[in-house]
Amino acid sequence: MGGWLKVAGLGPGDDALITPEVSAALADATDVVGYVPYVERVAPRPGLTRHGSDNREEIRRAEQALQLAATGHRVVVVSSGDPGVFAMAAALFEALEASEPAWRALDIQVLPGISAMLAASARVGAPLGHDFCCINLSDNLKPWALIEKRLRLAAEADFAMAFYNPRSRARPEGFERALEVLREACGPERLIVFARAVSTPEESLRVTTLGEAQPDMADMRTLVMVGSSHTRLIQRHAGGAERQSTPWVYTPRSVSGAGS
Amino acid sequence: MGGWLKVAGLGPGDDALITPEVSAALADATDVVGYVPYVERVAPRPGLTRHGSDNREEIRRAEQALQLAATGHRVVVVSSGDPGVFAMAAALFEALEASEPAWRALDIQVLPGISAMLAASARVGAPLGHDFCCINLSDNLKPWALIEKRLRLAAEADFAMAFYNPRSRARPEGFERALEVLREACGPERLIVFARAVSTPEESLRVTTLGEAQPDMADMRTLVMVGSSHTRLIQRHAGGAERQSTPWVYTPRSVSGAGS
Repeated sequence: MGGWLKVAGLGPGDDALITPEVSAALADATDVVGYVPYVERVAPRPGLTRHGSDNREEIRRAEQALQLAATGHRVVVVSSGDPGVFAMAAALFEALEASEPAWRALDIQVLPGISAMLAASARVGAPLGHDFCCINLSDNLKPWALIEKRLRLAAEADFAMAFYNPRSRARPEGFERALEVLREACGPERLIVFARAVSTPEESLRVTTLGEAQPDMADMRTLVMVGSSHTRLIQRHAGGAERQSTPWVYTPRSVSGAGS
Repeated sequence: MGGWLKVAGLGPGDDALITPEVSAALADATDVVGYVPYVERVAPRPGLTRHGSDNREEIRRAEQALQLAATGHRVVVVSSGDPGVFAMAAALFEALEASEPAWRALDIQVLPGISAMLAASARVGAPLGHDFCCINLSDNLKPWALIEKRLRLAAEADFAMAFYNPRSRARPEGFERALEVLREACGPERLIVFARAVSTPEESLRVTTLGEAQPDMADMRTLVMVGSSHTRLIQRHAGGAERQSTPWVYTPRSVSGAGS
């Protein structure tokens, strides 16, 4: 039958951040399946059918991809960033587990991509250079109380933190509450980074403290990072590009701040 | 003067996982600086000097790279995986902060790479598909008590977990103790994944439970992942390749396990 299914990460936006592995899969595919703006990142060509679907259609999209692969198509399910971090890979396996057992013999692979977290971290320095955690702040699929519990435990563990989906238009109050919890747990001097649309033309970066942070500094395209108690700033000397004026933010490898 | 310094991630081993951004930087470099086995992944060519150094030489290596860039060289500092995750980016900024202020005007960029964590996660499915944390289990640069505290808090937060540097030859007892802490906090049925040297010819995968896990299943080339309480297995139907016999491991997007 010859069909296969690859769940692939397109990275944060810049084509120079798409791995050759993913590019090769796209070049060999008969079908690309995904959320409309991600599918549109794949150039049309003869022999390729692009199936764009709405957000929050993840399970139906995954079933469609499995069905296509089961009937001999070569299918790439595209995610932004990395497919394994709050993206399509988990949805695909949820659909696979709930579907007909024969599909478990399909040739399925997950192809990693540059996650928004790694791209944002690179842009400002190395804020995740020591132990860290990664939390989806959307309460679509989990109770808000669990998010708050995780924020408090992450602060107690002194992790650096990366937050996905910080602020939806439908529930902007969630992020305001998250900032309050973090200020209480980490203090107003703790560093926070707002990295929006990294590697796209709309990229913007802002480095501030929890005391100065405002909820409207984030939207759904923003990756937010909060430092550990050891995370530090380095002011850059004046340079030409706008990016140069944002200070570097990094978390030393050692808890004492001492080098090796 | 025209010098620059890029701290670049070479990914977990397979050249198909190196981003075009990193390949372009390597093609334009005059000097590559890094730990010997990573520098050897960059093919020699006329006009390129490769500076290999020992492990645990991170700060001296970073100073060397800054010095070269300050004198007009185009320098790539290479890391395995992603440079921002327990790799050279943090060391570079430690050295920058401790060095002469003029170096802060240098053109420095961090280029992200596919981290071992993302590559290992993709190989077995989507174990990091929900909130997770990432901990370096080496106690070279932090006290063991802090590692243990973070393990207990991560278990209480019900994070999936990714562990770097699980087991050194010098201190193998650390990982044994980590497994004890995790068994106590998460119970013997909790899933654990040992992903060794993913994307290299030495790749091996093992999926088991904390109750069955043995310390010698990990070495310093192994990325270890422990599921949250919601992480699940899907047995694959018999396939040809050895990889096909490892079950899929994934963490659903929802805490209740329900799809969207």
